[in-house]
Amino acid sequence: MTRSAEAFALENFALQCGTVLTRAQLVYQTHGELARGRDNAVLYPTSYGARHADIDWLIHPDRILDPRRYFVIVVNMFGNGLSTSPSNCEKCALAEQRFWFTHFDNVRAQERLLIEVFGIERLAMVYGWSMGAQQAYHWGALYPERVERIAALCGTARTTDHNRVFLESLRAALTADPAWTGSGFDGIPERGYRAFARIYASWAASQAFYREGLYYKLGYDSLEDYLQRGWEANYRKRNPHDLIAMIDTWLRCDVGDNPIYRGDYCGALAAIRARTLVMPGATDLYFTPEDCAVEAARIPDAEYRPIPSIWGHRAGNPYQNPEDAAFIRAAVRELLDRPAL
Amino acid sequence: MTRSAEAFALENFALQCGTVLTRAQLVYQTHGELARGRDNAVLYPTSYGARHADIDWLIHPDRILDPRRYFVIVVNMFGNGLSTSPSNCEKCALAEQRFWFTHFDNVRAQERLLIEVFGIERLAMVYGWSMGAQQAYHWGALYPERVERIAALCGTARTTDHNRVFLESLRAALTADPAWTGSGFDGIPERGYRAFARIYASWAASQAFYREGLYYKLGYDSLEDYLQRGWEANYRKRNPHDLIAMIDTWLRCDVGDNPIYRGDYCGALAAIRARTLVMPGATDLYFTPEDCAVEAARIPDAEYRPIPSIWGHRAGNPYQNPEDAAFIRAAVRELLDRPAL
Repeated sequence: MTRSAEAFALENFALQCGTVLTRAQLVYQTHGELARGRDNAVLYPTSYGARHADIDWLIHPDRILDPRRYFVIVVNMFGNGLSTSPSNCEKCALAEQRFWFTHFDNVRAQERLLIEVFGIERLAMVYGWSMGAQQAYHWGALYPERVERIAALCGTARTTDHNRVFLESLRAALTADPAWTGSGFDGIPERGYRAFARIYASWAASQAFYREGLYYKLGYDSLEDYLQRGWEANYRKRNPHDLIAMIDTWLRCDVGDNPIYRGDYCGALAAIRARTLVMPGATDLYFTPEDCAVEAARIPDAEYRPIPSIWGHRAGNPYQNPEDAAFIRAAVRELLDRPAL
Repeated sequence: MTRSAEAFALENFALQCGTVLTRAQLVYQTHGELARGRDNAVLYPTSYGARHADIDWLIHPDRILDPRRYFVIVVNMFGNGLSTSPSNCEKCALAEQRFWFTHFDNVRAQERLLIEVFGIERLAMVYGWSMGAQQAYHWGALYPERVERIAALCGTARTTDHNRVFLESLRAALTADPAWTGSGFDGIPERGYRAFARIYASWAASQAFYREGLYYKLGYDSLEDYLQRGWEANYRKRNPHDLIAMIDTWLRCDVGDNPIYRGDYCGALAAIRARTLVMPGATDLYFTPEDCAVEAARIPDAEYRPIPSIWGHRAGNPYQNPEDAAFIRAAVRELLDRPAL
């Protein structure tokens, strides 16, 4: 059963950047029923730019997460425009004002939601793609005894330097727009959106995706049509401050950068107790298979299984791509069928 | 012997876009001496954003092109700010005004320079990196009987769709700047340069280059220092109209798109008679080894030999990178030692 989205309020929530939010909120949606033993909960945090309704296509008896068996909680990341974000909270800002959200913030807030609303102390799985995978790794490291399994698709537990350059290019392109004031936007960044979408499109699918003209098979008339309708239109739906805020989170992603691990990235990965499926896209250009393999080797019970796909980063969210969806479904079912450690 | 740069004028030069330039010019510099039989000429066209002095480090008895043996002509591409470009010619503009240079224009102008100034009818080699390689392929296809050898480093004879997305992102980022008027810049695009440089940096070196922190070994203090001093400072030296003009050329690169081949890209490659060394960087992200291999297979006498390097696209211009330079030098010497067909 799918209910409408709900909001969970957190009073005086202290963020890692130093700001205390008088009232933060997480918006979430649940699918299925929580078992009496509260042992069938799957947490599914959102990815960059996405809201819960953008990523829930895979929650279905025949797809990756079966809501007949699992109680799936899709939680919106801070900054995405539904949970607390610059677009809906005056006290929120951007890194220019020394304000940012971290995944440490996201995961601590999610933990309170699970306990206070549902009484869930252990998660059967955290499932996440991209920035969702980053949150999944944070869950595993920050609450080792409370996460039985992790499915981390196309994400790393720490943002690599190369990935940072990509993010800096996105940030610089959006803020090149005349509507940028130095601390925010005083209008719609028409040109910024245009540049932003083209950078994203260049990185998110592989060279082979373009070489084989897969965008034609998706119904676009031309490369320009694909860039405009397939990419730019989606980002234009998002508040530009929120787009920057989510980049600010991504730039700071490091599972060891928090008061628990105090910079010990390797220690944080080594602390993960969950059975962990590390599942990059074989052609992902920014969360590369190589970077994911190194992290898998640092996690005690990790399986490294790349998705053999030319969809690049998008292999991990294959709503237009049944072949990759089937590969992921099989791997996730195997993971779920293994007993918890 | 290296002389100072000189300029070659072309009266009433008709460009492929339809514009006739009353007076176009090519700026070039020569190294070494033309042999009496005029059979030792090597043409070396410039790459994106570069001028002759930026790329001539490899002309030296101990390096890739030996000026004791070869007469090396480094010719500046149209749009680079020395040869005819938006920054030095009122009649030049950008694609917004239906004005652009093509490599067909570059190569026809270079051919006149060679004949009219030096009486050179056959080239021992065309050597080019990146947009220089694009020009080398055009030489081979447009003047098959006049090019004995081609060394094409990290470039393709036609711009791929994925490469186009990268270029569109650069163009959109620079023109997102407030100084952009819709047809040109009315000031210095400070923010545009910043975004432009970060996009370029993200694509031009490989993920492994960043993973191994090679920028530290080059003397930069931090990632930001590398982006600013290593990338942004170089583009800021260039007129932004010229940067766009060179992108407009690159976007239109297609060895078959001219009155000789009338769209027959494969026919153009098949017409090349030169011994051709197709030498991508093994980790080049926009002129990928896969794309270069497909072209090598279409050229009758081509050897495909990727540079085993983590420097990405920059493997082909290894001025900071002695290992790749040695690999290229050996391959180019082998090519030059083989008799012409």
